Order: sequence, then C-alpha cells, then structure tokens
Amino acid sequence: MIKIAVVGATGYAGAELVRILTGHPEASLVLITSRQYAGKPFAEIYPAMTGVVDLKCIPCDVDTVSGAADFVFTALPHKVAMGVVPGLLERGAKVIDLSADFRFKDSAVYEKWYQSHEASALLEAAAYGLPEINFELIQKSSLIGNPGCYPTSAILPLAPFMKENLIDLDSIIVDSKSGVSGAGRSLSLAAHFCEVHEGLRAYKVAAHRHTPEMEEVLSNLAGRTVPITFTPHLVPVSRGMLTTIYADLCGDVSHDIVYDLLASYYKDKPFVRILSPGRVPDTLHVRGANYCDIGFRIDKRANRLILVSVIDNLVKGASGQAVQNMNIMAGLPETTGLSACPFPV
Amino acid sequence: MIKIAVVGATGYAGAELVRILTGHPEASLVLITSRQYAGKPFAEIYPAMTGVVDLKCIPCDVDTVSGAADFVFTALPHKVAMGVVPGLLERGAKVIDLSADFRFKDSAVYEKWYQSHEASALLEAAAYGLPEINFELIQKSSLIGNPGCYPTSAILPLAPFMKENLIDLDSIIVDSKSGVSGAGRSLSLAAHFCEVHEGLRAYKVAAHRHTPEMEEVLSNLAGRTVPITFTPHLVPVSRGMLTTIYADLCGDVSHDIVYDLLASYYKDKPFVRILSPGRVPDTLHVRGANYCDIGFRIDKRANRLILVSVIDNLVKGASGQAVQNMNIMAGLPETTGLSACPFPV
Amino acid sequence: MIKIAVVGATGYAGAELVRILTGHPEASLVLITSRQYAGKPFAEIYPAMTGVVDLKCIPCDVDTVSGAADFVFTALPHKVAMGVVPGLLERGAKVIDLSADFRFKDSAVYEKWYQSHEASALLEAAAYGLPEINFELIQKSSLIGNPGCYPTSAILPLAPFMKENLIDLDSIIVDSKSGVSGAGRSLSLAAHFCEVHEGLRAYKVAAHRHTPEMEEVLSNLAGRTVPITFTPHLVPVSRGMLTTIYADLCGDVSHDIVYDLLASYYKDKPFVRILSPGRVPDTLHVRGANYCDIGFRIDKRANRLILVSVIDNLVKGASGQAVQNMNIMAGLPETTGLSACPFPV
Amino acid sequence: MIKIAVVGATGYAGAELVRILTGHPEASLVLITSRQYAGKPFAEIYPAMTGVVDLKCIPCDVDTVSGAADFVFTALPHKVAMGVVPGLLERGAKVIDLSADFRFKDSAVYEKWYQSHEASALLEAAAYGLPEINFELIQKSSLIGNPGCYPTSAILPLAPFMKENLIDLDSIIVDSKSGVSGAGRSLSLAAHFCEVHEGLRAYKVAAHRHTPEMEEVLSNLAGRTVPITFTPHLVPVSRGMLTTIYADLCGDVSHDIVYDLLASYYKDKPFVRILSPGRVPDTLHVRGANYCDIGFRIDKRANRLILVSVIDNLVKGASGQAVQNMNIMAGLPETTGLSACPFPV
Repeated sequence: MIKIAVVGATGYAGAELVRILTGHPEASLVLITSRQYAGKPFAEIYPAMTGVVDLKCIPCDVDTVSGAADFVFTALPHKVAMGVVPGLLERGAKVIDLSADFRFKDSAVYEKWYQSHEASALLEAAAYGLPEINFELIQKSSLIGNPGCYPTSAILPLAPFMKENLIDLDSIIVDSKSGVSGAGRSLSLAAHFCEVHEGLRAYKVAAHRHTPEMEEVLSNLAGRTVPITFTPHLVPVSRGMLTTIYADLCGDVSHDIVYDLLASYYKDKPFVRILSPGRVPDTLHVRGANYCDIGFRIDKRANRLILVSVIDNLVKGASGQAVQNMNIMAGLPETTGLSACPFPV
Repeated sequence: MIKIAVVGATGYAGAELVRILTGHPEASLVLITSRQYAGKPFAEIYPAMTGVVDLKCIPCDVDTVSGAADFVFTALPHKVAMGVVPGLLERGAKVIDLSADFRFKDSAVYEKWYQSHEASALLEAAAYGLPEINFELIQKSSLIGNPGCYPTSAILPLAPFMKENLIDLDSIIVDSKSGVSGAGRSLSLAAHFCEVHEGLRAYKVAAHRHTPEMEEVLSNLAGRTVPITFTPHLVPVSRGMLTTIYADLCGDVSHDIVYDLLASYYKDKPFVRILSPGRVPDTLHVRGANYCDIGFRIDKRANRLILVSVIDNLVKGASGQAVQNMNIMAGLPETTGLSACPFPV
Repeated sequence: MIKIAVVGATGYAGAELVRILTGHPEASLVLITSRQYAGKPFAEIYPAMTGVVDLKCIPCDVDTVSGAADFVFTALPHKVAMGVVPGLLERGAKVIDLSADFRFKDSAVYEKWYQSHEASALLEAAAYGLPEINFELIQKSSLIGNPGCYPTSAILPLAPFMKENLIDLDSIIVDSKSGVSGAGRSLSLAAHFCEVHEGLRAYKVAAHRHTPEMEEVLSNLAGRTVPITFTPHLVPVSRGMLTTIYADLCGDVSHDIVYDLLASYYKDKPFVRILSPGRVPDTLHVRGANYCDIGFRIDKRANRLILVSVIDNLVKGASGQAVQNMNIMAGLPETTGLSACPFPV
Repeated sequence: MIKIAVVGATGYAGAELVRILTGHPEASLVLITSRQYAGKPFAEIYPAMTGVVDLKCIPCDVDTVSGAADFVFTALPHKVAMGVVPGLLERGAKVIDLSADFRFKDSAVYEKWYQSHEASALLEAAAYGLPEINFELIQKSSLIGNPGCYPTSAILPLAPFMKENLIDLDSIIVDSKSGVSGAGRSLSLAAHFCEVHEGLRAYKVAAHRHTPEMEEVLSNLAGRTVPITFTPHLVPVSRGMLTTIYADLCGDVSHDIVYDLLASYYKDKPFVRILSPGRVPDTLHVRGANYCDIGFRIDKRANRLILVSVIDNLVKGASGQAVQNMNIMAGLPETTGLSACPFPV
C-alpha cells in the first residue's frame, strides 16, 4: 500500500482527493492537514464522510508529512504551495501539486500572470501532469504540476491538432462554462447562492490566468506560439465544465478526418471518450468521473471546426487527474481507483 | 384602450404575453385562444394568475379573433402561424407573430431551414420586429415578424459594427447559452428536470435555424454577406440567455472606441444598457425585464473583440419585445407597460 | 406623492423594497442608506437596477432620514433597528420596521429569544403588521413591526381557526421549507452555492426565533395560549416558502366547512387566495408577488387537518407586506403598487 | 461471480441498478431488458456509461432472463411486475422486485390503494426488503418486495420506537421532501424543468400510496395498528429525500434516551448513521450513497419528538437497497459493492 498525505484537505479539491483516495485499492490515506480546521475530525467538516474517513486534520509540518507519506498531494492556494513543496521533495516525498505553482516551464510567464516565484529552480524538473500528453515525463518525475481545470478541458480536444496543419493555430477561441465548485469553498458574493442561482455570467474575459497555461502547453506541442482567446463563464451547477472551441480549418477537412484524428490520438487513453459525429457531450455524463468526453462538428459554411469537451472540474479537472498522475508515478494502471461508473442522473 | 388577442396563449411565450399585457396601461386583453385547453379558464392552466386573469381559452377562429381585437399576437408553432396570419390581416387586424414565419425577406432561406412557405406574399410587407434597428418600418407595418431569442441577443451587440470597418465581418462567432424555457412547454426528454439539472450541453452545433435569421439581418445592415458560426447551449436555468460573440478587430481599436460606438448607437434606446468596460453582464440583472445588457472586452493579445449580451429569453427574447413592437405600431411610448424594475435576486 | 426612505437598502429585503417602491404610483423613493456601501450608487450594488434607480447610498443619520421622508422602512439587523427607530419616530416619521424588534407585545418573550430590548417602551404602540388580521391597528399606528416570513406563512392559514373550535389548539405543528434568500446577503457557508445546491436540510429544529412570534399572535387571536412545534428547512431555491401545517380536528369536520371558513375569512383580502379542494399551492405561483396561496386537505383516517401555504419570502414574507402596511397607514388601497401579475414560470 | 439480470433497465431505478452492479466485485451483469429501447445499446440511452456498460437492451422474455441469471432485479411499473415475477421464480431465479407489487402481506390493502393483484399467492413468501429490520427473512427468501423510497425514509427512524412506549403511536406525522428523480423518467408536466425549478409543492396530500406501506410495516413492528399522516413534497433537486417526523412523547424523555435507543438499535447496521444531538442531516451528505442519516430533537415545550432522516431516493430509496438485499440473499457482506465514499459536494 502506498502511503498518502493530503496537504490542504478541506477545500473542495482536497476533499475530493480524500473521497477518491478512500476508494483506492493500492493507496492508504494516512495524514491530512488543514490550517483552518487543525485538530478537527475531517468528518466534522464533511459530514458526508462520517464512518468512511476517520482522520483528524493536523497542521502542515513538512517533517511530519514527509515522514508519514510516500506521496503528498498539495491542494493549497497559489504561492502557499511553493513554500511547502521544496521541503517535501528534499525529504524524499513525491509531490503532486494542484496549485499553479509548478505548471509553467517559464517562470517569467508565471510571474507575469501570478506573482513572484520563490521555487523556480524546481520548474525544470516538474512535469505538467496531463497524462494523455505527458505520460513519460510524469512517470519519471518526483514533482507534478497538476493542470488547471480550464486548461485540461481545452488542451485535450486541441492537442491532436497541434501538428496536423488542419486548423489555423492563430484562430483558436476557447469559450468555457464552469460549475461553481471551481471557485472553491472560500466565501464570496460571487459564490453566494442567490447571486448565482438562475444567473449566467462571463468573468475575467480575456484576462483569466489559465490562458498562459493553455498557451504554453499547446505551443510546446505545436512547436510554435499558439495564442488563445479565452472566456470563462459561471453557470449554476456545482460540478461540471463544458468548453466550446472554435478554430478556422485549413482547406477542405471532412468529419471523418477529424473523427479519425481524435479517435486515433486517444486510442489507448482510458479517460478520453471521443463521441461519434452527431453526438454532443453533456457534463451530466461525466459527473463524478474522470472522463473527458469530446465531440465536434464542422461549420461547413464558415469552414470552421467546433470542438466541445466536458469534464467534472473536480475530478478530471483537479483531483481525479491528480490521482491518475500518482498511479502513473507509482507504476500502477492509470485507472486504479478511478473507474467508478458515472451516474445515470 | 387597445383591444388585444393572444392566439396560442398557453405556451410559455403566450403566457408571458398574457402576464405583460395584464399590466399594460393602454391595452386590454380581451381574448385568448388555445387548441389544447379550449374551454378552460386560463388561471387553471397557470394558477399563478388566479384572480389576475379571468379569461377562458377559446379555439382560434379568425373571424372571432379579428372581430374582437385591434392587435393580435400569434404565439404558434412555425408553419401553424402562416395558416392563421393572412386571415387576420385581411380582416383588418394588426399582427405580431412570434414564430419564424414572417422573419425572413427571402422565402428561399426560410424554405431551406424550415419548410415550404404558404404565405410568402406577405414577407415583403412584414417588418422584422427588432425595434432598436427597425423602428420606422415597424411603425408603418401591419405585420411584424418578431425576432428569435438568439438573434435578438446576437444582433443587438453586433449591429453597431456592421458599417464601421472595425471588425472583420467574416470572423464572427456567436456562442450562446440559454435557459430551458426557450424550449417551450411541450414535453421532451431534453427538458425533463433530471436530464437538465446539473447538466450543460451544446445542441444543434452549427445547425440551428436561428443562424440564417442572424445572417439576413446583419447582412442587410452591413450591405454585404455576413456569415455567422453559431453554437447554442442549454444551461439549467428557467429564464435567461447569455451570448458571447467573438470577432477579429481590424487594426488598432481601443476600448474607448468600442464603448463610444455602442453607447452612441443605443443612446436613445431605453432597453439597451451598455456596460462600462470592466463590468460584465449577468442574466440575473435582466430576469423578467425587457433589457438587453451589453458588455465587451478587447483581447489585446489576439486583437479580437469579445461582446457579451444578456436578455431574458421570454421577455426581450420574445413577449416583451412583441409588446414593444405593439407600442410602436400603436404610437405609444416604447416602454409602455414594460418598465417594471428588475428583481435584485 | 409620499416621500420614502429605506434604511438598510442593500440587503435582500432592502433591495426588494427599492424594487417595489420604484414601481409604486403614489410613493417616491427619496433616500436610501447603507453602512457598508455608503457613497456608492445603488445600481453599482444591484446592477439589475441600472437606469431604474439613480440614488446613491448614504450613511444612516436620523435627522437626515426623517427630514427627507414621510415614511421610513428600516431593514436592519435585529438590535440595530431598535437603536434607530425611536429617533425617527420622535422626529415625526412613520416607521415600518422589518426586524423582529417591534413584533412582540411582551418584551420578556423578545428578550428570551433574542437579546435585551432597549426601546421596549415603544412595543405597546407598535402594530404587528399582518394586515389581514390587524388592519385597524395598522391604520392608526406610527410604528409597524413587520412580520417574519415564517410567521406570515403560518399565521395566515391558521388564523381563521383560532376561534372556531374546529382544531385542537394544542396539536399544531408547522413544517416550513424556505428558499435561500431568507438567509440574507451576508456570506456564510450555509448559503455558499455548492453547500446548498442539490441539498435539503432542516435547521434550528424546535429552536427557531420565529416560534414565539407565531405563538404570541395566534394566542392573541385565540384568547388562550397556542403552542407551536416549528421546524424550518432550507431548500435550494432563491425565493419561495412553503409551509405545511398539521392539526388534529375536533369531531367531524368536512372539506366544505374548512373551505367555507377560509374563503369567508379572507373574502375581502386581495392577497390571500384560497384554493379549492384538490388544488395544491406551489411557490412558483407566487414568485415575485404579494400573494399567500392556501390549500388544505383533511386526513380522514387520522382526522387531522393539513394546511399548505406558499408565499414569496421576500414579498409577502417581507418587503411586499411592508409596502402593504404603508399603503394602509397612508390611506391608500392596500394593493397600490403591489398588483403585478405573477410570472407563468 | 453471481450472474445478474435487470428487467426494466432504462428507467432511473433500473439505470441506477446498472451503475451500482457495474462496480460490484461479486456480481456480473449479464442481461438487461427494456421494452422501449429493445435492440439499443444501453450506453446510447445513458451516454454517461459509454465504455463502462457494453450490454444491449433486449425485450423481456422470462425463459431467457431466468436462463441467464441467478438473480433478477425487476424495475417495472406496478402491475407489470406481477406479470413477470411468478415466471422468473418458477424457473429458479431469485427476484428482487422494485415495484409495490410484493411489498404487502395483505392483498386487500394493496388492492385498495393500487389495483387488483394477480399474483397474491406469492405475497406470503415474499420478504419486505428493508434489511435493517428484516434481515433474517430476506436471507431465506427468494422474492423480495423492495421498499418504497418514502417508507424507507420514514420506517428507519421510527422502527426503534415501535416497542418502547416512548411515543404516542397514534400521533405520528410524516412530512417528506423528495427530489424529482423519484418521479421517474416518464415525461410529465410535473417533471418538466421550468415547472419544477424554483418551485416547491406538496402533492397527494394524505393520499399517497406509500402511506399503507409505512403503516403495515410499522404496525407489524408495534404489534398494533399504527396510523400515519403523510404529506410528500417535491423540491427541485435531482436526488435526495428528507423526511421530518413528528410524534408526541409519552412522559419525560431526554435527548440521551432517544440517542441511545437509536444508536443501539442501529449499532451493527452499516448504512444507518445516527447523528449526535445538535447535528442535522442533509441530503447532500448521502448523495449517491446507500446511507440513511438520522438526526432528532425534542421540542421540550410541546413534549414532541422530531426525527429527521435523509436518503438518496435512488440508492437507499431504491437500487442501493435492492443490491443490499441481493448481498444478504447471496450470503455476501451487506456492504459489498455499496461502500463508495459520498461526495463532499
């Protein structure tokens, strides 16, 4: 059994890690930390888990954590993570970090969109944790920068096109719709029930910090700069993210060509499901599961490709993907502990 | 008092017409028809209106309807409307039709996307009922083709740009998110509670029949063909539509230029509210009201304009706009009966 | 025109007052206060009201407020209200207070369930603002204790029975289900979107502070002590309250007797709609409106009466009722400014 | 591996059975039937299960089904089930029926509330499938009448009191609030999104067919007739049921006595969680899980007990409980395949 710690277990991503790990047949959750709830039983914070999770939250101490666990998931705010991760690595732990702190190769990009980086020496060795495109690096790495939810939902449908000359790489527009759990458990008027329910809004239009993450990863795949116009929206669901992507096609491209490219690219990838033309993805189909479903359609009149992807933002968009990374690092089948059947409704 | 009939009063658009007209100070609702509920009191179908609406539904008879009413709103399915409208006009009624049957000038376009047209002789005289761009024609016309909800939400933000050479008219993408009431009151699995709640999906991607309506109107404004890539999505709210529009900018365009253009174009239009840069529209702000709120942002990195509009699909997207058209036809102030304050939540 | 001030205008009840008063034909909203948002335009806090409400929030100063307004609505937290109301009354304003501070005749009851009372001398003269049972007192009073939402929804269906010997007054159970806006705009985990959406919970079981309010009013009507068992529940809607009431019947009571009692008691009351047997109320039918709909059924097998009422907790449960009180105090028809047609959906 | 068939697999209860059985380590789902979708892959009806469930729906034929499977779950409408179950039993299958057809011992009760019974000879041998109170009979039986959702949520909190003389058995009131999935997948206006969302309503007040089921089971436990007043309500969530129960206490009963009774009664029952006084259950805590959480509070002023229970109506209220029954019949640990950790949100 692999021994696991979750640092920052009481936010939504942390709690979702706890949920998934509780059912993982090869992992044993031995330690969870929380600054806010130190000393309290986890099941008091999340009564859903009464009788399932018996751990108490403790404060985060690097020695204690790395002494107890082989793998550490850090689900901390940006900037806080980079203060903890180096110490964990030095003490021999393998770390999967869910913040943005280790997602970028270029610390200048991070510093432009986030803040100053205090552990930039680690960026080189960190692997970007999107297993479908980065399996080998993840396997060899001790530190994973687990992707953002929006980048996951955008990069997966776009990746197969980066080398194919089928779409104009300067024309990509990403329009995402996210459930509210992506905003986390911290209180804000923007996540207050009556301000969200029966509402729809865009936010951080062309200014969201997930934009450079999409751009860096896609540019690396393409071997050239790929600029992204990105608009996130908030919709009144708890979980779920739907991303609609527009790109101009280069010449005459058929539905079959697109379908075959997507299907072959993800042939052996258990968590990506390519929908046959005519089917459209729905976030309901992936709720609570680690799937990314991808559909598409060509707008023949404008010669434009429209890709549509759905994920559960807390699973494939965060904690499920983190466990998938752990499986790969530990030499386990990717799907271990992640194969629960999605709900019918 | 203007005497009013609503033909097809028990669908959502019809019932919303009844609601609005009940509070209209210059109009008196004298007759409502329903095939399905003929003989029943309206308040039995919509108990919300008990004590407010005392009319019974009767079957639609052209003589009876035109004999009783000066203005007739027809809220019928496409194709059914064109069977009723000519008779009403012949008998002297003014007609505002909420179906697609009288929205197009070119019957070939209608026939390509809908079905054969049996009253195409009327298309020439019918006015497209978007008052902010078509006021004079509406004023003079006896037949209004009331716009679709998606076209209303897309044309209003785009119209000011059609003659300005600020955006590339071949690059327009319209990504819309709609509440479920747009699907009407007819039962379908697609509007069954558990299949919608906590879900998000695209539908009729690049194939929705509102596409040619947007194209015809915008092309007329531009004096050239304007192709639109259009993707509608369904989100789990009852009312509300948010439309995000992308267009490549021509050269260097500032936020001020865009703001000034929008603000001056809609200077005297009481139902269009232009948001200052930095503000984003939310469907909650227009729920139950006849407003269209428009915000925007320039993606400097890609030199692309992003417009965001919100409407209540049943009000500015259907019945409120229909009453606005009636006001104009009747020589009343546009806002008569339509100035209710939006709800705070 | 009556000049109106709203003190505490930026909470949900305050903002709903602003909404309703904006459409009131005999009232002019001249002044609004907010501690938190002093100096800001109201439409910046509630962008829905852009172009409709042009006032800025100012800090609450008793002289300024009473100098500007004939009627003052105080929508402040309990305890805060009692610090402001005496000064307003002394300066000649009529006050409708939406807190609990002036709802009780017996300050000992208030002090047991709330806190110490610093203006208890005013309790005698204050009128409990439930117009359907207290019209004359409201008419004559300068200070109204506007009822709580739960008490409104429970007292209206029960009041007709208090003197009739049809139900056992010791057997009354009130089971209420409330939308989230009742919890107000202050941030709390209990109103955080993801903690509420798709959830259902009871709270303050047999311990809610609205219990003694129901008991005092019903006991006064009955001329004896009427104990109430009360359980509130939270359901994931923004607006709406449904209350189910159980009481043992005394002897053989028919549906006709119950219906006739309810119908005759509320014969001339424009905001209470008694549903014929077989119909059940739905909060959707009163959303945004000042109605209280009441249905009922007799459980013949247990000889028990079941009453079901619905209100919009922000309208008849708070701000609509407050305006109804103002109308009565000002000698206007009760329904002035409150007759908007409910929405079909 | 136990071979399993689900007859009527495409309704919500059937699909939830498929979901749960797919993850069951000792069971293999070999056959599913659907009248409506015969010939279609299950994953086409429920795209969520693409790649997880590879079965096609076939029509229900008693020989084929009983030839293929050791255990058959019948998830059919009332009356339809009784036409299929006898044939399955004759051919040696063990049957867990999710309809009401085999829940009653007394066919006269069934016939009074449902319709004529054509397989009443089987009622004697059928076991009522509420494992927490009927374990031994379930273990020995070949036919299980799987409980209704409302009865499950009401009987579990009440059962411990039936023999204890702590509550007045003539005073029990059950007030339930259910999510919409309980209404099934069949289209109806009552489950149409816009008619449910943002609404709350009671239905079948004192007339719901689950009433006699509660009464028969509780009466059997008590050894005397226990009448129940029952009101179901519909709330706008997909899954979840909360039941609030009121009963007069006999004499002086403390919180400790009630807690100890509940805790000891369910000491070894893995799916019942008794909440310590001061905690209240929330349907969010059991979403997707087989738990029934029970909280309570004594209203000292009225000397009345208030019990609150929550279940997921599709899991403990239907399909999870059915699998729990199968586990018991097959000699497996009760929790096999049912121990998934609930979601944090």
